[in-house]
Amino acid sequence: MDIKYMERALELAKKGIGFTNPNPLVGAVIVKDGRIIGEGYHEVYGQGHAEVNAFKNATEDVRGATMYVTLEPCSHYGKTPPCAKGIVEKGIRKVVIALGDPNPEVAGRGIQILRDNGIEVVTGVLEEESRKLNEIFLKYITTKMPFCILKIAMTLDGKIASRTGDSKWITNEESRKYVHMLRNRVAAIMVGIGTVLQDDPYLNTRLEEGKSSDPIRVIVDTYARIPLEANVLSIKSEARTIVAVTELASEENLKKLKSKGAEIIICRANNGKVDLNYLMKALGERKIDSVLIEGGSELNYSTIEAGIVDKANVFIAPKFIGGSEAKTPVGGLGKVLMKEAEHLKNIEIYRFGDDIMVEGYF
Amino acid sequence: MDIKYMERALELAKKGIGFTNPNPLVGAVIVKDGRIIGEGYHEVYGQGHAEVNAFKNATEDVRGATMYVTLEPCSHYGKTPPCAKGIVEKGIRKVVIALGDPNPEVAGRGIQILRDNGIEVVTGVLEEESRKLNEIFLKYITTKMPFCILKIAMTLDGKIASRTGDSKWITNEESRKYVHMLRNRVAAIMVGIGTVLQDDPYLNTRLEEGKSSDPIRVIVDTYARIPLEANVLSIKSEARTIVAVTELASEENLKKLKSKGAEIIICRANNGKVDLNYLMKALGERKIDSVLIEGGSELNYSTIEAGIVDKANVFIAPKFIGGSEAKTPVGGLGKVLMKEAEHLKNIEIYRFGDDIMVEGYF
Repeated sequence: MDIKYMERALELAKKGIGFTNPNPLVGAVIVKDGRIIGEGYHEVYGQGHAEVNAFKNATEDVRGATMYVTLEPCSHYGKTPPCAKGIVEKGIRKVVIALGDPNPEVAGRGIQILRDNGIEVVTGVLEEESRKLNEIFLKYITTKMPFCILKIAMTLDGKIASRTGDSKWITNEESRKYVHMLRNRVAAIMVGIGTVLQDDPYLNTRLEEGKSSDPIRVIVDTYARIPLEANVLSIKSEARTIVAVTELASEENLKKLKSKGAEIIICRANNGKVDLNYLMKALGERKIDSVLIEGGSELNYSTIEAGIVDKANVFIAPKFIGGSEAKTPVGGLGKVLMKEAEHLKNIEIYRFGDDIMVEGYF
Repeated sequence: MDIKYMERALELAKKGIGFTNPNPLVGAVIVKDGRIIGEGYHEVYGQGHAEVNAFKNATEDVRGATMYVTLEPCSHYGKTPPCAKGIVEKGIRKVVIALGDPNPEVAGRGIQILRDNGIEVVTGVLEEESRKLNEIFLKYITTKMPFCILKIAMTLDGKIASRTGDSKWITNEESRKYVHMLRNRVAAIMVGIGTVLQDDPYLNTRLEEGKSSDPIRVIVDTYARIPLEANVLSIKSEARTIVAVTELASEENLKKLKSKGAEIIICRANNGKVDLNYLMKALGERKIDSVLIEGGSELNYSTIEAGIVDKANVFIAPKFIGGSEAKTPVGGLGKVLMKEAEHLKNIEIYRFGDDIMVEGYF
C-alpha cells in the first residue's frame, strides 16, 4: 500500500515540472482509513509546499491520518514556514518519506522534528524514483552549480547536420516534442554563437498542451559577435537572454547587446574562450539550477572537456546521410586513444517512434 | 501446440548457422501422439535436408505422424532427392510449414505434391520468424545477389576511431562476440583497402565455443595496392581471400597477389573505383549468398550509394571521444539535405551489456 500511495505522490510531484526551479518537485498524499483524503504538490517556486497544499485540499479531518511525501518535510523558515511543524500541529500520526532532503538547512532535521513529536516516520519508499525525479535539485542544493544535460540529435551515422549544414529535421516529431518537455523542465538552455549564426533558433518551449515555461537562454559568445537581430534577442518570452562573453568582447558590442535587453556575464577566459566552469558558477549564483546544452559540435566538446555535464540525452534517428565533412555531435580536438573516451553510466534506452534516445550519466 | 513444435523446429534450424550457405536454414520435428519422435535440421550444405535427418533420427514408426518444418519441403532433385516425395513415402499424415520456398524450382510444388497425395498441409505457422531466419537465402534464391549487412561500431558521438585512428576497442566484449557470430553466419566479409592498410585485420571468425566457419574475405582494392604481408593474405583459414580490383591495377601486382593464393576479380570501374554492383553479381555467381560489410567510412558510403546494402547492424558504445577530424561511420560526399537521408525500416534495438545495437533494413 505504501508503494501505491507514494507512486501517486510522485505523480503529483511531476505536475510541478517547469515551475518549481530551483526548488524540488514534491508531491504529498494524506491517507485515512484506506482512503485518500488530501493531495497536493509544490506548484510554483516561492509558493505553498506539497504538504501545505495537501492539507489545504483535504476533504476531512486529517487528525490521525498518514502522510506520504516524496521528500523529507522542511525544517527551516524559507519563503514558507517549516512543513515538519505544520504536520505536527495538524495531528498526523505517521509520515512515509521517499527521500531525505540533502539541503544543508534540512538534512534530517525535518524527520527529527516529526519523531521528537511522537510521529512514526518511515523512509526510503520509492527513494530511487524520487532521487531521479529530483536529480536537478539534488545537485544544485549541494553544489550550487547547475545540473547540465547534454542534448544531441544525430543520424545513425553520427551526423548532426548534412555537409551543407542542413539539420531540419534529423529526429521525428515525437523526439522533438520530448525536447520541448526537456526545455520546459530546465531553468536554462545553452548554445554556442556558432549555432546562433548557423540556425538562428528561438530556444523557447513549444508544447502543444498545458502551460509551459521558456528556459532562460544562454549564449556562449566569447567576442559578443551575436547579431542584434538574432531571434534569441528579439523573441517575446517571459525568460531573459544571457550572453556569456569574455573580456575580449568589445565595449561597443556589449553596449548594443544591453540595449536589446540581454544580460551580460563577463566570464574568465580559458584558452581564449569562455571558461565554462566560471559560467556555471555564475549561473548557479543566479538561481539557475539546470542547463540544457543544445550546442553544436564545438560547444559540446568544450562542455565535456570542462567536466560540467551531468547527463546526456542522445536522440538517434535511424537514417544515414553520409559526408566526411558533415558535423558530428562532439568535435574539437578529441581524445588520442579510444580507451580515454568518456564512458557514460546507468544507460537507459527510450524509443520515440522510430527514433532511439540513449540516456546516460557522466 | 503447432507453435510450440514450430518453435522447436526453428531452434533446430539455427544449429546450421554458418554451414548451410547458400542453402536455407531448416529444422524439422516429427510428432506422434503428442510426443516428439524425431528431430533434424539441415546441417551442412550439400548434405541431408532437415526432413531426411528427422526421419533418420526417428525413434519409432513415423507412419501417421505430423511433421513440422520451417520451410516448404523441396520438390526437385538437387544434391539430394525431393523431400516432398520422401514425406509421402514415409506415410506422414499432416505437414505444418512455416514458410513457402520462393526458390523458383520449388515455389509451391512441394506443397502440391503433399496435397496431391492426401496429406493435410497447414502453412504460415511462425512464418515471419522463419522469414527473418532465412532473409539471406530468400534474397539470394530470388535475385542471385548476396544479402549485404552493413556492420558499424561507433561511439555515442558517431566516431569509428579516435582522431589518430585508434579503434581498439570501441564496443565491449559482448558486442564483439556477436560480430563473430555474424561472421560465422555469412558467406563473406568485405572491407576496403583503407581498412587493411590502417588496421591489418584477420577477418576470421573467433568464437569461444562450438565449431565455426571463417567467411571468405573480400578486399575492395581498385589498384591492387594490398601489401603481400597483409594478415588477410597470410592467415591460415579454410576460406579463401578474394581481391576485387579494376583494370587500373597493374599486371605485376596481380601476379604477385595470385602467387599468394588470392583469387582476383577484375571488376568494372565506376568513377575510377570498383563497381560494387558488378562485384556483388560476381560474388553471387560464386555462390556467395551473404556479405558482411565491415568497411571504413569510404567503403560504407560507397555501398549505401550503390544500393547494395540490405540491412544495417550499428553497435553504439555509450562513450564520447570527440574530435572533428575523427572518422565517422559513413563518409564520402554525403547528401545535401537532411530529408534526402536514407531512412531505415523495421528498427529493432538490442542490448549487449552497456552497448546498444540498432538493427534496421534499407
